Amino acid sequence: MIIITGHGNFGSGLKSSLDLIAGKYDFIKTVDFTENKSSDDLKEEIRNIVKDTYNKVYIFTDLPGGTPFKVSSELTLEHSNIEVFCGTNLPMLVESTMMVSLGFEIDSEAIKTAGINSIKPPIRKVVLAEDGI
Amino acid sequence: MIIITGHGNFGSGLKSSLDLIAGKYDFIKTVDFTENKSSDDLKEEIRNIVKDTYNKVYIFTDLPGGTPFKVSSELTLEHSNIEVFCGTNLPMLVESTMMVSLGFEIDSEAIKTAGINSIKPPIRKVVLAEDGI
Repeated sequence: MIIITGHGNFGSGLKSSLDLIAGKYDFIKTVDFTENKSSDDLKEEIRNIVKDTYNKVYIFTDLPGGTPFKVSSELTLEHSNIEVFCGTNLPMLVESTMMVSLGFEIDSEAIKTAGINSIKPPIRKVVLAEDGI
Repeated sequence: MIIITGHGNFGSGLKSSLDLIAGKYDFIKTVDFTENKSSDDLKEEIRNIVKDTYNKVYIFTDLPGGTPFKVSSELTLEHSNIEVFCGTNLPMLVESTMMVSLGFEIDSEAIKTAGINSIKPPIRKVVLAEDGI
């Protein structure tokens, strides 16, 4: 199972991108940490999703040190099948979705590498190839 | 100006996270590449935002090679003040928002580094410090 959680509509926003790029999968859940929720609410909501799952759960969070990351990390104390990522970008999620959809466990180092390699410095100019070259 | 664009609600989702973490700023715009839009629609929508701006425009896109990235890169041919990033995660946006809100230009290498450094391999266990240690 993959859970995407972050401040505001981070989770549902990225899920909508994933739906278009990788397809819609039931094993992807989102929990939005919206303004009206406390950190306890958020924790309880994630706990309710993971409590009956004995398969691996991969939680993708928005940024290190934030409440969604903190709460998810705390839940690893209760559930040893949880792994928490932070600094999530879309390439990490696309790669993870492909792995899980094929029945594989997520290769954490590969996901980290996919995320890092996708971050590019600005492309300042598109250079069009000249004819004959 | 900062523009966040990607498949589905990538842009509006990340903007809602930014609003909670960094505050709401008028210089941050979003363009969602939703199912009903063509790549030409997307390009036109971004073009309309940037056309009267002579300040630097930083476009943050979801993943390399996708339509939002491709269209944004093509617009650098028309507007030399545009810089395009891909593999966007929230730490990159938080850092960029802070720089622009303080009146600075974005330091592209610093933003890339912020994005890369925030991607962590899974935290498998929270280890609580024992008393006296």
